[in-house]
Amino acid sequence: MKLYDSRRAPNPRRVRWFMAEKGMDDVEIVDVDILQGEHRTPEFRRLAGMAQLPVLLLDDGTVLTESLAICRYLEALHPEPNLFGRDPKETAVVEMWTRRCELHLANPLMMAVRYGHPALAKLEGTDEAASAKQRDGAERMLKHLERQLEGREFIAADRITTADIVAVTGMDFARMIKWRPPETLVNVGRWYEAMRARPAAAAGM
Amino acid sequence: MKLYDSRRAPNPRRVRWFMAEKGMDDVEIVDVDILQGEHRTPEFRRLAGMAQLPVLLLDDGTVLTESLAICRYLEALHPEPNLFGRDPKETAVVEMWTRRCELHLANPLMMAVRYGHPALAKLEGTDEAASAKQRDGAERMLKHLERQLEGREFIAADRITTADIVAVTGMDFARMIKWRPPETLVNVGRWYEAMRARPAAAAGM
Repeated sequence: MKLYDSRRAPNPRRVRWFMAEKGMDDVEIVDVDILQGEHRTPEFRRLAGMAQLPVLLLDDGTVLTESLAICRYLEALHPEPNLFGRDPKETAVVEMWTRRCELHLANPLMMAVRYGHPALAKLEGTDEAASAKQRDGAERMLKHLERQLEGREFIAADRITTADIVAVTGMDFARMIKWRPPETLVNVGRWYEAMRARPAAAAGM
Repeated sequence: MKLYDSRRAPNPRRVRWFMAEKGMDDVEIVDVDILQGEHRTPEFRRLAGMAQLPVLLLDDGTVLTESLAICRYLEALHPEPNLFGRDPKETAVVEMWTRRCELHLANPLMMAVRYGHPALAKLEGTDEAASAKQRDGAERMLKHLERQLEGREFIAADRITTADIVAVTGMDFARMIKWRPPETLVNVGRWYEAMRARPAAAAGM
């Protein structure tokens, strides 16, 4: 298998972090430079179907995109440690929190960076008001996480899951525009520092 | 189990369509009126954790939100007909297309309606330029689907899957702003009419 990656980009980093938690080191990594537009070349589009990263190329030629589809496939190959849930109910709770963290926290923060960071302006165009609106949305979600993390070490289960990985990689990406979680959210702050201290945090950086 | 639903809303309709394909008729449906703000009352927020629909309330009191987390849980209870994939590779391909259809087609069309439809202006504020931008994004994704549907009956497998359900419910919702898929996309047009002719299309409407 080959993973087409792009260092520091938030969606590829989800997969790198996920693989590091699994201890997977048998996947060839191919670096694609998004800022140089390498994901928009005809060759890359022909491979990936769309100008998206990450891409997992299987040995039989099957191409997978979408970070969480790739992670779920890797979980089937390497079930332990479990990151998606052990039974239907736990799996549903993990997916619910993963999607909340993705749609209401990570994606808005990614858009805040794209709208707000000069180096990415060529992708989306800079728009400070749009960037602030996305940050505000993300911070509303963080208030939900603050309540969820009261007395808990992880977001969705008694161990790290995809929900934590999606949340922390989205939040880390927003450091590019000097964003930090509000200091009043003490449970979020404790959880965030614990996540950043994990060995897997270095993967893909 | 109880499903908190809202008629015609696109995310609850995914679950209703999914249940209809499964032939599930043993779930109690509770209608919540989004336009009247019933999902924003303190009682509903206390139940759901967030002001979101659909919500599946399990018999043990567990609350699930996020339409696809709910569908995956229902698939575990009612495995046939299979709508998420039969093995890790097919499951990954189905999830990839489901996410592409969600993030690049259904979600932009939902935002196009929210920004573009007067009755929803109280939720988001009307903004015709923002609505058009979202429609343009959705139509770029439809060009990918046009190629994918060449010689195929369904988007991601040899049968209907969550990818088709997410795509068609998103596209149907945009009929509220009189949107239709461009007629030049003949494969998309054929697939769209076939999906709308399925008995499950009536569920939740």
